[in-house]
Amino acid sequence: MIVVVMGVSGCGKTTVGKNLATKLGLPYFDADDFHSELNIKKMQSAIPLTDEDRRPWLESIAEEMRSWDKEKGAVLACSALKEMYRKVFNQTIKNIHWVYLNGDFDLIKSRLENRAGHYMKSDLLKSQFDTLEIPDYGIHIDIKEEPASIVKKIMNKLNLSEKSFFGIIGLGVMGQSLALNIADNNFSLSVYNRAVEGEEKIVEEFLVKNKNKRISGFTKINGFVDSLETPRKILIMIKAGKALDDVIEQLLPHLNEGDVLIDGGNSHFSDTLKRYQFLSSKGIHFVGSGISGGEEGARKGPSIMPGGSKEGYAKIAEVLEAISAKDKSNNPCCTYMGPDGSGHFVKMIHNGMEYAEMQFLSEIYGLLRTTMTNDEISEVFEDWQKGELSSYLLDISAKILKKKEGKDYLLDLVLDQAGNKGTGCWSSIAALELGQPTTVMTSALFARYISSFKSERSNLSQKIAVSITTELPNIDKLKNAYLFVKWINHQQGFALIKAYSEDKKWQLNLSEISRIWTNGCIIKSALMEECVDYFKREKNLFDLEEIIDLLSSLESSTKEVLHFALEKRISLNSFSTAFDYWISMTTQQSTANMIQAQRDYFGAHTFQRIDQPENQYFHSNWGVDD
Amino acid sequence: MIVVVMGVSGCGKTTVGKNLATKLGLPYFDADDFHSELNIKKMQSAIPLTDEDRRPWLESIAEEMRSWDKEKGAVLACSALKEMYRKVFNQTIKNIHWVYLNGDFDLIKSRLENRAGHYMKSDLLKSQFDTLEIPDYGIHIDIKEEPASIVKKIMNKLNLSEKSFFGIIGLGVMGQSLALNIADNNFSLSVYNRAVEGEEKIVEEFLVKNKNKRISGFTKINGFVDSLETPRKILIMIKAGKALDDVIEQLLPHLNEGDVLIDGGNSHFSDTLKRYQFLSSKGIHFVGSGISGGEEGARKGPSIMPGGSKEGYAKIAEVLEAISAKDKSNNPCCTYMGPDGSGHFVKMIHNGMEYAEMQFLSEIYGLLRTTMTNDEISEVFEDWQKGELSSYLLDISAKILKKKEGKDYLLDLVLDQAGNKGTGCWSSIAALELGQPTTVMTSALFARYISSFKSERSNLSQKIAVSITTELPNIDKLKNAYLFVKWINHQQGFALIKAYSEDKKWQLNLSEISRIWTNGCIIKSALMEECVDYFKREKNLFDLEEIIDLLSSLESSTKEVLHFALEKRISLNSFSTAFDYWISMTTQQSTANMIQAQRDYFGAHTFQRIDQPENQYFHSNWGVDD
Repeated sequence: MIVVVMGVSGCGKTTVGKNLATKLGLPYFDADDFHSELNIKKMQSAIPLTDEDRRPWLESIAEEMRSWDKEKGAVLACSALKEMYRKVFNQTIKNIHWVYLNGDFDLIKSRLENRAGHYMKSDLLKSQFDTLEIPDYGIHIDIKEEPASIVKKIMNKLNLSEKSFFGIIGLGVMGQSLALNIADNNFSLSVYNRAVEGEEKIVEEFLVKNKNKRISGFTKINGFVDSLETPRKILIMIKAGKALDDVIEQLLPHLNEGDVLIDGGNSHFSDTLKRYQFLSSKGIHFVGSGISGGEEGARKGPSIMPGGSKEGYAKIAEVLEAISAKDKSNNPCCTYMGPDGSGHFVKMIHNGMEYAEMQFLSEIYGLLRTTMTNDEISEVFEDWQKGELSSYLLDISAKILKKKEGKDYLLDLVLDQAGNKGTGCWSSIAALELGQPTTVMTSALFARYISSFKSERSNLSQKIAVSITTELPNIDKLKNAYLFVKWINHQQGFALIKAYSEDKKWQLNLSEISRIWTNGCIIKSALMEECVDYFKREKNLFDLEEIIDLLSSLESSTKEVLHFALEKRISLNSFSTAFDYWISMTTQQSTANMIQAQRDYFGAHTFQRIDQPENQYFHSNWGVDD
Repeated sequence: MIVVVMGVSGCGKTTVGKNLATKLGLPYFDADDFHSELNIKKMQSAIPLTDEDRRPWLESIAEEMRSWDKEKGAVLACSALKEMYRKVFNQTIKNIHWVYLNGDFDLIKSRLENRAGHYMKSDLLKSQFDTLEIPDYGIHIDIKEEPASIVKKIMNKLNLSEKSFFGIIGLGVMGQSLALNIADNNFSLSVYNRAVEGEEKIVEEFLVKNKNKRISGFTKINGFVDSLETPRKILIMIKAGKALDDVIEQLLPHLNEGDVLIDGGNSHFSDTLKRYQFLSSKGIHFVGSGISGGEEGARKGPSIMPGGSKEGYAKIAEVLEAISAKDKSNNPCCTYMGPDGSGHFVKMIHNGMEYAEMQFLSEIYGLLRTTMTNDEISEVFEDWQKGELSSYLLDISAKILKKKEGKDYLLDLVLDQAGNKGTGCWSSIAALELGQPTTVMTSALFARYISSFKSERSNLSQKIAVSITTELPNIDKLKNAYLFVKWINHQQGFALIKAYSEDKKWQLNLSEISRIWTNGCIIKSALMEECVDYFKREKNLFDLEEIIDLLSSLESSTKEVLHFALEKRISLNSFSTAFDYWISMTTQQSTANMIQAQRDYFGAHTFQRIDQPENQYFHSNWGVDD
């Protein structure tokens, strides 16, 4: 491809030509560099060149063009004012792309007067305009705009727009944050958002706000896809469910085999598996990726949990790992999880554990607020934040407690009805379906549900005589209890991941999962740092003697806190549930023999015996004396 | 169809003929009624009729036969001893069905001697046997059997078996019990079971064991369907899921519009809805019916929860209501629940509540066994059984505790690993999906899950230093606590039914549901009896002042029991969970404002304010001091 950028002196041939060459990845040449010494002297002496002077010069350039054409091409800046000059080139090379930079005399004159060191006198400009024969072919560009914009227009006219390395669909809060993060990491980026009612201007406004970044914006899906390098790498950041399937359906006709689609939303992992299977059949690599960290995380470095196509992940790893948070050794908090929907599964359990961690802090707040101000509670949290209890959620809770609105604590003005977005519920359902007792996250979810019955609670509270406590709980014991329940939550959460991984043969790496959760995500904490090493040693926290010893040493404090809350009529159910799990899991003889006997009594479901092999089942006539 | 039942006097022509006519829905005639007065006088004078005497008589009967044949047919009892007599009929009507009742001289003689009022002297019998020419065609039946059996055999030989009123597919434990229950209620019944490996002889053995009941058995689906009156009423009692869909698929080609299919298994209610919609489109009435009561209930009277096609239910109501348990007013514990899968939904929640009721008793057992023998615990249960705590599950638990095997309590030999069949899990999932805090049934489910980690529990228990308690809990307080948690379980279970019913617009009647649960089902209890009236007044137990007052009065005892268990390191999690629900639901100010602030902090999820309308949402920069 040979592109010749032409026009009078001062029209911007050099700048535009050089930029264009860079975009096209082609060498740049200036026609003036091919003049003979004689010609140069004439020009330096302000003697106009004759057409006779120009012929050998043009012919030597044309000769060069032949060799450029054999390679990948070149961009040449050349005034080429007369058709006869251009003809020398056109006769040598077919299909030269002519770009005529068009500006009026006054504009160019003022530019030339501002320019230093150019050897042509500005009074020669008039003669150039007199000589100029504007071509009736090629690309004509008005030079009023900035060079970058001119280059972009030329690229468009050449049907050779700059291809972006990465694409994002969906400019919601998370999509925008990730886009800026990616652009900041020097990946060229295309973004797409549909232009339906209410969303017409999202792309435009986003581009205006971020005009100095390498981001191209689209409201049409085909333009968006065409703007991407192949294999295309497209991150979809839209609402999970039907909307996602609709976008995939719109995308499919424009994609090629080997392209990579990434779902970065909160899809249910079983849907991700279905999409993975469907898209695999079309030769598309599908990566379902959990992304944690909220808006700020997405902008500055989230924790990323990609799963699905391993081959697809290999093609996008450099982007995801660059934009992710970094652990304490500066390794990315992003790594390939496993096949199927395992990325979204891991993110889902992250959220389930997050529910529990949030509930712990809420319950502690509920216990302390009867006798302490929010500022005092905040100080307790800040004190804890200095040690092994340190975590992102503890940190923000301390800040939340201090936040004032005028004279009031803002927290006191927040309605006590908690919402949820589904992933906490999904985690509990996954646990229930697999027979895994993740009691703490479920208890936290139920606490949110109960909170939503605000009017019922208000009504009932009127009917109950309650005495307000003025007794302060023991803060040191509470601190111990908090550490206790956090470990139980991590035990349950990781046990669920382990059980699912084994069930689905995903071979998830618990140590790596805890490592990418040490930064960027909502449940990052000092305790999570400890998990990284623990899970290198064992796949179950309860298999670690340190953990059992620690929990044993914390049991008594936790019990005291539970006695206190029970007596004071304060709900501490996630603590109580965590404690019961510990008690139950460390009790050899459960009471399930009674359950089994009842089931056998009324339903003939049979039972196993402690004095017989486990694979043998018995039935008894319980109601009849033998 | 003309059937002539023939044979010597006293062979049973009249009885068999009349019964057969009834079964076939045909008029019955006795040949003797067509004799001329002259012939009758001869017979009364013991003068044997000559063949000459008989000719006009036979011809007049033959003439009648022509008109019977034009209608739907008839059954005629006629001795027709000689072939020449029979020829008169055979020449008039093609395809007469001859039935020869075959008995020997002594048998018939003894029968005749026992019979009063017959005008033929028994010494004429000998001449009848002399005259008899046994036909070498027609159906020959030995008269040794009872008339009903003879009729059945004739019907079979005529390929005209009696149509059954009701059919059952699947002769598992529940199917067999229900079949016997239905037969005992005087409905004629066909049963079907496939004849695959391991199930070849189920039908045969079932029929042999129950040969004196009105049950026909089949191993081929077309024969089974053909044996049923239309509209067919078929109860399917097989494993829920694919097996059920397979059976429905096999059935469909044989069914007609208006037939009724009932799924009496434990199908998930959303599957029932799908089947209902599918079968409705084919004109088949589909009723998804929960059936509770186990094997014994099915045999003697279960609680039945039918839902789906109301028109279909109208056609089967007489059967289901007849076989169901009866409440204290002798009304059937069976009533139409509502549309879609609501019957199976109600049964599912029944089972969820059952999990909790079973767990309560297990935990009480666990609390008491540290200081009491099983017999002593049984005595406590028997004592409670006398009053308001009386229930089926309490009753059987008392019996289970007493059951001995040699010197050992059998309960002590049962392995403490509880199984489950899914409905408890489904109930919890339904609650989670709808945002309903049915914490107690979920806690009971988790307790079963934890019990399944037997080897982990055994290992961990070795690492923990535990002191065994010798202190007896306060039995009166425990009794109060038990009543407390039972009411919480019923509050939660019925609240879930109410919420689902409103969500799906099912208009379920909570009072009727509790009424049909007062007998026949596993969770029948004195408390359930109280619910029947309560739910006539309010749709939520917590809206009843008596309940709130009762629970308030029980709170202190429950708290004491929880303190005791906590101190003694005994899991009482379903009690603790129920208590927390009570505390949380009667607390005006929950701690969910902290949850909402956290969510807004990290995810910009916004929050509502107590000083602003609930439909307004706010976002704050929590981390920044204003």
